[in-house]
Amino acid sequence: MIKAGIIGATGYVGVELVRFLLAHPQVSALALSSVSFEGQNIADIYPNLRGQLRGKTDGVLGDADSAVDSSDVVFTALPHGIAEEWAAKCLAKGKKLIDLSADFRFDDDEATFKAWYGKDWSHPAIHATSVYGLPEMNRAAIAKAKVVGNPGCYVTAATLALIPALEKGLVDTGMVIVDAKSGITGTGRNPGATNNFSETGESFMPYGVGKHRHQPEIARNMGKAAGGPVNVVFTPHLLPMSRGIVATTYAKLAKPATAEEVHALYAGRYAGEPFVRMLPLGSVPSTRNVRGSNFCDISVHVVSGGTVLEMVSALDNMVKGAAGQAVQNMNVMFGFAETEGIDLIPAAF
Amino acid sequence: MIKAGIIGATGYVGVELVRFLLAHPQVSALALSSVSFEGQNIADIYPNLRGQLRGKTDGVLGDADSAVDSSDVVFTALPHGIAEEWAAKCLAKGKKLIDLSADFRFDDDEATFKAWYGKDWSHPAIHATSVYGLPEMNRAAIAKAKVVGNPGCYVTAATLALIPALEKGLVDTGMVIVDAKSGITGTGRNPGATNNFSETGESFMPYGVGKHRHQPEIARNMGKAAGGPVNVVFTPHLLPMSRGIVATTYAKLAKPATAEEVHALYAGRYAGEPFVRMLPLGSVPSTRNVRGSNFCDISVHVVSGGTVLEMVSALDNMVKGAAGQAVQNMNVMFGFAETEGIDLIPAAF
Amino acid sequence: MIKAGIIGATGYVGVELVRFLLAHPQVSALALSSVSFEGQNIADIYPNLRGQLRGKTDGVLGDADSAVDSSDVVFTALPHGIAEEWAAKCLAKGKKLIDLSADFRFDDDEATFKAWYGKDWSHPAIHATSVYGLPEMNRAAIAKAKVVGNPGCYVTAATLALIPALEKGLVDTGMVIVDAKSGITGTGRNPGATNNFSETGESFMPYGVGKHRHQPEIARNMGKAAGGPVNVVFTPHLLPMSRGIVATTYAKLAKPATAEEVHALYAGRYAGEPFVRMLPLGSVPSTRNVRGSNFCDISVHVVSGGTVLEMVSALDNMVKGAAGQAVQNMNVMFGFAETEGIDLIPAAF
Amino acid sequence: MIKAGIIGATGYVGVELVRFLLAHPQVSALALSSVSFEGQNIADIYPNLRGQLRGKTDGVLGDADSAVDSSDVVFTALPHGIAEEWAAKCLAKGKKLIDLSADFRFDDDEATFKAWYGKDWSHPAIHATSVYGLPEMNRAAIAKAKVVGNPGCYVTAATLALIPALEKGLVDTGMVIVDAKSGITGTGRNPGATNNFSETGESFMPYGVGKHRHQPEIARNMGKAAGGPVNVVFTPHLLPMSRGIVATTYAKLAKPATAEEVHALYAGRYAGEPFVRMLPLGSVPSTRNVRGSNFCDISVHVVSGGTVLEMVSALDNMVKGAAGQAVQNMNVMFGFAETEGIDLIPAAF
Repeated sequence: MIKAGIIGATGYVGVELVRFLLAHPQVSALALSSVSFEGQNIADIYPNLRGQLRGKTDGVLGDADSAVDSSDVVFTALPHGIAEEWAAKCLAKGKKLIDLSADFRFDDDEATFKAWYGKDWSHPAIHATSVYGLPEMNRAAIAKAKVVGNPGCYVTAATLALIPALEKGLVDTGMVIVDAKSGITGTGRNPGATNNFSETGESFMPYGVGKHRHQPEIARNMGKAAGGPVNVVFTPHLLPMSRGIVATTYAKLAKPATAEEVHALYAGRYAGEPFVRMLPLGSVPSTRNVRGSNFCDISVHVVSGGTVLEMVSALDNMVKGAAGQAVQNMNVMFGFAETEGIDLIPAAF
Repeated sequence: MIKAGIIGATGYVGVELVRFLLAHPQVSALALSSVSFEGQNIADIYPNLRGQLRGKTDGVLGDADSAVDSSDVVFTALPHGIAEEWAAKCLAKGKKLIDLSADFRFDDDEATFKAWYGKDWSHPAIHATSVYGLPEMNRAAIAKAKVVGNPGCYVTAATLALIPALEKGLVDTGMVIVDAKSGITGTGRNPGATNNFSETGESFMPYGVGKHRHQPEIARNMGKAAGGPVNVVFTPHLLPMSRGIVATTYAKLAKPATAEEVHALYAGRYAGEPFVRMLPLGSVPSTRNVRGSNFCDISVHVVSGGTVLEMVSALDNMVKGAAGQAVQNMNVMFGFAETEGIDLIPAAF
Repeated sequence: MIKAGIIGATGYVGVELVRFLLAHPQVSALALSSVSFEGQNIADIYPNLRGQLRGKTDGVLGDADSAVDSSDVVFTALPHGIAEEWAAKCLAKGKKLIDLSADFRFDDDEATFKAWYGKDWSHPAIHATSVYGLPEMNRAAIAKAKVVGNPGCYVTAATLALIPALEKGLVDTGMVIVDAKSGITGTGRNPGATNNFSETGESFMPYGVGKHRHQPEIARNMGKAAGGPVNVVFTPHLLPMSRGIVATTYAKLAKPATAEEVHALYAGRYAGEPFVRMLPLGSVPSTRNVRGSNFCDISVHVVSGGTVLEMVSALDNMVKGAAGQAVQNMNVMFGFAETEGIDLIPAAF
Repeated sequence: MIKAGIIGATGYVGVELVRFLLAHPQVSALALSSVSFEGQNIADIYPNLRGQLRGKTDGVLGDADSAVDSSDVVFTALPHGIAEEWAAKCLAKGKKLIDLSADFRFDDDEATFKAWYGKDWSHPAIHATSVYGLPEMNRAAIAKAKVVGNPGCYVTAATLALIPALEKGLVDTGMVIVDAKSGITGTGRNPGATNNFSETGESFMPYGVGKHRHQPEIARNMGKAAGGPVNVVFTPHLLPMSRGIVATTYAKLAKPATAEEVHALYAGRYAGEPFVRMLPLGSVPSTRNVRGSNFCDISVHVVSGGTVLEMVSALDNMVKGAAGQAVQNMNVMFGFAETEGIDLIPAAF
């Protein structure tokens, strides 16, 4: 049993972490922190939690330093650029940290981080040992890590869809298309035009065409899998629904392959993965089938007369795309069963 | 550990039962039956279940008699009028039955059942011992029952909202208004005009005005609580969303009472209930805060210059309004902790 | 042909007015004003309008005084408490004003306005001649008015549902229940928790129980129809959709009446009305059938053994509940055909 | 003034045609036909039309031959494979026909039609003179045509997005990606799993990957624009909303071009088009901005370091993607102003 703390507990990712950790059998206590709502009770802000604190917390939102002091592991669910300071504090006090911002997603590449997030690293040394928290790529390193950078939501969907093919040199890396669609929780809790129901319900549009911050993170993961640069075109779109991401990805086949061969490759690559479900040939993923769960469902298709490989991946952006994956990382870091606390069966509707 | 069977496993209520029982720590095996899909695998029909059968079932949909034979408790999630036969079989074989249709909701009143459902009872003797499965009214009897009739979804919301006031004679029984609104899962899996997205999304309407079958069931419960007849006006409406019911109920106060007094009465009445959450004065329920959980949230209001008592109750029609309440009844019938397998924390969004 | 101006053109009601007036055959020019976006082009803020200004405006948002000066009629779509000043200016300059806030909805009752809106009248004299803009109650007075107060959205739905019965003394005025449900556009353009998709999509809840500002306005209209005080209980709810209001209203019958008799009464009362559609007995309104149009659809029901009269009314809160009704008032004030510019046929979906 | 008939008036496309033709100033009479609902009144099936028949029809659904006899132009909104017979009848009687199925979309290519629709042509001679009804490609021919095949919804969005680039040889035709997303009205009126709210609301998924019937139609249009074969990968997805299509299209640039240059090319190509709106650089289309209107909004982007051309197009699948475009074709065929009856300004929300 461990104690966990959440800095930024009242954002959407934060409160989803609260939900998973309240139900986690290996977490005995939960310290919650929020700048915006310090002193208030989280069950007043999120009444879904009323009566469900389960003796792990009184719900009162405290300061972040106290959360660090009382925890074995700290989750930071903050705007980009703040987590480094908390990582330094955690390391100094012998605590582990899992960050859900972009701060530790580019650990070997400060230049790219700076180019896209407009900020230098303040603690470069930490990045030398921090680990990118995608268990399907980095499980062994995560198990030994003290600081983990949790991947972006779109990035998880796109990366899982493409790495088996890239690792085997199956596709042309000259133009990989990632056409992705996300539910509105991805815009976070701060209200604005991008999440006003009247302007987003019954509507659909792309955004950030050619300049979304998840593009370099996807390209980085793909490059690692391919062993060389991959030219990634990434377009996110906003769906009129709360949760769920679908990434539809396209690449030219570099060598002939049947759908059966590709499926076998993928099924083998993900055979032991508790949270990747390869769909049988002929099926396609739907966000409905993963909603509320930590699964990423993937289908593979060979189209256009055998010349193009198309993959479809679906996950819940708040779970496998954020809080669930963070708990999965915690499980790996502490040697718990990887599915503990996040083995929820998705509902049919 | 017990073995459970579901007859009608591929309807919406059935598959929701599957989800809860797969995750239930006291259920070791699950037998699934379906007339429409016999021989197929439930994970092919509901891909959300793929890889999640957890050794309790192979997923193949068998015949109903086999499901009875291999189970300690049988859930029937069938159209009205079929469950009596299964109850007779279960009783003959010493198995318990929890029915989710209306067949055992009028156990002391065949005339009303016949008037609204157009069918005589075929096994009147069973109704002499069957129990209406609303734990907040009938817990002790449920604990000893062999056959339980699970309440209707609207009925649960309306009944929980009103019984504390009715039991104390707080309101005039001459005209109680229940204005209720339900998500579309209430229309079930069979596709039709009432659940076609193009005609129900971005739309709202009442239906069954003055003639919905839940009216007599609400009236029956209220009458039992009041100790005499209650004149109930019930209007259901269809919400453009999947899950959730809100009942807004109105009755004239029979004697003066402040909101604080009413709130204290309700809080006392439901003090020990694991699945009823009385909201503090000034708050109102939202389906969002109970979605996917077995909670019924209730608020009380004294309005119109102190003359009218208004209650708002919210629950998930597929959980506390159907499958979750059925599992709660199972827990009571078998002496398990009442929250086992259904202690899910609702998500914030 | 007249010239029209809109003060507050970029709010939701404002831009809906823009849409109707751009297409109105009797409006030759349109002056648009906005404090928040002065100097910008409305087609940049609302790209739906791109290329559709039709020579009536260049789209540039100017100052309000200029809009008054260049117009024959001015629409004020502003927060409550501001329109009086503009009414004074318009009257001084011989222009007509149609206000969409509450400022002119209580013309003979400053006390109620002050009690609910917290503000004294600054120009009491104007209220002596201003007219409440519900054509179905006040058409003749509107035709002669210089200042018109456009009714509230919920108020229009509730009033049209009840006045025929109240005018004939058909119902008991001791407790009239108005249970109303509105789409999210009713919360306006300013983003906040009440219109964040993630918290309002797939959810439903009441708000302002016992204290919504439309209650006194409904009570005022009903009192005028009944010729005496009516005790109105009003509960609004927020629907997970953009547009549309349904009011479900209940009152005890004061004297016996069949559904056929009530229907005949209503059909007679609204026989000449271009925008009220009495549905045949057995039908119920749906917001889908009025979406985007100026219609209010109404059904009547006698329930509970002949003791209770129930009405259901549906309208589009942005059209008959706001901008469409304002244009209808303009048509009446200027002697145009009452349907000009607002005779849109609702789409089937 | 002309008389129009609709065969298949009660499907979704049919009833949308009814709406437009009832409001069309050049249509004096409307004959409605339906096999499923013959003898019934369309206003009972679609209550949105109640009171809106405007003297053009009594609403009674008659037989198809009568509709042909009483009309100058006949619209067929039927399943694929039926319209040819009606085209023969219309030609024999000197009437014009606009078909909304696929029957006349492959007029010079029976083989492709047969391969995808599994049917030979029964009247090959008609296809020699029938015209593909995309005014932006074929206006002059449409003006002289007697039989017009209205394009598919996805096809219209994809074609308009790509033809300017293809006509100028701007892009590599080796792999053009069309990732398209449609609202649920595209699945039509027949209820089924693909339009059940409970399974499609709050969900998103692709369908028909690599085998959707709109692929050959898109390829045909692109090939005509490019003057040679284009390898098109087309993936449709189902959005949790009623109306609207977005196509996001990707192709490698065949020669260097800046976004400004591409934008200028597109703006020039569509300069005179009443229903194509080129958005300024930096903007993206949203289905919200075209909902209910006949517009197709298009944006262009040069991404991936100047190597890839990306276009986003949005239209209403029931209007520019079906019924609106059919009326546009009618306007061209009869020499009416092209915007008559379909010059609706989209609402802001």
